[in-house]
Amino acid sequence: MAVYTDVSFEDLERLLEQYDIGQPLSFKGIAEGIENSNFYLQTDRGAFILTLYEKRVVSEDLPFFLGLMEHLARAGVHCPLPVKTRDGTALVQLNRRNGAIVTFLTGISLRRPDVAHCAAGGAALAGLHKAGEGFALTRANALGPKGWRPLFESIHGADGIEEELTALMRTALDELEAGWPQGLPSGVIHADFFPDNVLFVKEAVGGIIDFYFACNDYYAYDLAVMLNSWCFEIDGSYNITKGQSVINAYKAARPLSDAEIAALPVLMRGSALRFLLTRTYDWLNPDPNALVRPKDPREYSKKLRFHNKVKHAREYGL
Amino acid sequence: MAVYTDVSFEDLERLLEQYDIGQPLSFKGIAEGIENSNFYLQTDRGAFILTLYEKRVVSEDLPFFLGLMEHLARAGVHCPLPVKTRDGTALVQLNRRNGAIVTFLTGISLRRPDVAHCAAGGAALAGLHKAGEGFALTRANALGPKGWRPLFESIHGADGIEEELTALMRTALDELEAGWPQGLPSGVIHADFFPDNVLFVKEAVGGIIDFYFACNDYYAYDLAVMLNSWCFEIDGSYNITKGQSVINAYKAARPLSDAEIAALPVLMRGSALRFLLTRTYDWLNPDPNALVRPKDPREYSKKLRFHNKVKHAREYGL
Repeated sequence: MAVYTDVSFEDLERLLEQYDIGQPLSFKGIAEGIENSNFYLQTDRGAFILTLYEKRVVSEDLPFFLGLMEHLARAGVHCPLPVKTRDGTALVQLNRRNGAIVTFLTGISLRRPDVAHCAAGGAALAGLHKAGEGFALTRANALGPKGWRPLFESIHGADGIEEELTALMRTALDELEAGWPQGLPSGVIHADFFPDNVLFVKEAVGGIIDFYFACNDYYAYDLAVMLNSWCFEIDGSYNITKGQSVINAYKAARPLSDAEIAALPVLMRGSALRFLLTRTYDWLNPDPNALVRPKDPREYSKKLRFHNKVKHAREYGL
Repeated sequence: MAVYTDVSFEDLERLLEQYDIGQPLSFKGIAEGIENSNFYLQTDRGAFILTLYEKRVVSEDLPFFLGLMEHLARAGVHCPLPVKTRDGTALVQLNRRNGAIVTFLTGISLRRPDVAHCAAGGAALAGLHKAGEGFALTRANALGPKGWRPLFESIHGADGIEEELTALMRTALDELEAGWPQGLPSGVIHADFFPDNVLFVKEAVGGIIDFYFACNDYYAYDLAVMLNSWCFEIDGSYNITKGQSVINAYKAARPLSDAEIAALPVLMRGSALRFLLTRTYDWLNPDPNALVRPKDPREYSKKLRFHNKVKHAREYGL
């Protein structure tokens, strides 16, 4: 959660002159997303989110993110639809930042999704994967396997967070680089499909948000990110009932190949390592301008240690 | 702006069981208010703000604040109305904090109110003063003249912010303690009537918010707080046209006595010193848990130096 860049009403008024979305009725900085500044905007024509992109989001990637949201929304995915200016562009400039206005989605993110939510989320992830087919732009996964070693090497002092954390990461990295699966079905993935980024209205998915890690990679890797973030309990144990719920709902919409099933334990380790690396880095290098507390890396070292003992996808509920 | 205390959807669901305000549709931490954690809550019955009171707000004061908002709202002031639980209380407990749900008000706070906004704001302030009559509870102004010396004495290192800042504050404090006006008309004042706390829908006041400094004190002191925060331009100059606009609109609704007019220059110095002291203290003692950047005290040292040269209320537009 963060509001980095200040936007006055006067800034907003000038911005809205470029759009045809009515007069502002309410405008508030909201604590959402860790990468960008977000504002809730209500006008006489509807509710919107204004996002200003901070340094972590590279300008060159914005056409991919905004184009993807438009592609997915047109294909029926409940995701924010970028609003175009009168000139037909989705990307604008405000206070020396790139920015965009997207439609506001109703719904609430759950801290602890239950089994029914896991099923709805799993189906939504498969729907997103299918809807992404045919999207013309591509983006490499900057936080995929090739990005892990440079990130690992930029981390200094991890053992101050947890004993032997450096060794845990190094061993996983060596093994994953050697044994990463090849040629699995791939396409557009969300890459950050945490419960935070799925809005529920009762037990139905009302919205999928925060596409700023989206990229092209293995679909089953995205499923692993979801299982890692939806199916562990607060005490650190893996809830296989929730895992089954996610996987069965996903499979019903997009069947998993034998190769994807065989790769699942490795993908689970990989996605745990990815979040362990970024959280460890952010923990040791807090952004002094960030209005956000870094997330605890130890949640993911615990998950990685669990996955290190897993032999077969059955143990995740398959 | 701040969100200090985390509230999960599960916390919210438990909280809402106590109320009869429908099912949650949207819930987001908002960057509003520097004293408390605030959340925007939309249900199928309306829009609300959930506030959790952090340490700066003393529990004993909450019945005053919540009772005052209810009193003012019933008297026609556009201010948040505290929502009662099924048990009839406005004050609840959540995550070891006192909290309250109030109605959400439409409107946007302006960074630079123009002359017409100043008139609407001045009239709203007078309306608030008149509507506060008859409110049964009282609260001393903790940040009134008696509070300034202890606050001043707790400040160390002010000259590192600005040359001779300590001397500026000490001289003002000595003079104000000796010459503070006695027996002016008094009652319930807002005490923080900054543009941030007034929501406009076009040129009309749609809401007055943030009553957590409200107290009993001189009405004309409240007017001085408003003039100080609404009528200076970014370059530091006092805009007498805006001053006239505030004062004339205020007077039309609540006439000023000769004593109030005579006291205005002293009250302007006093209210400038009050914000200079708190901003200087906060600048030198930033709260490590605060998701907020301290406001620059030099805005108010500049204003205080201006007021030190003023001889008559005419110079403010009277």
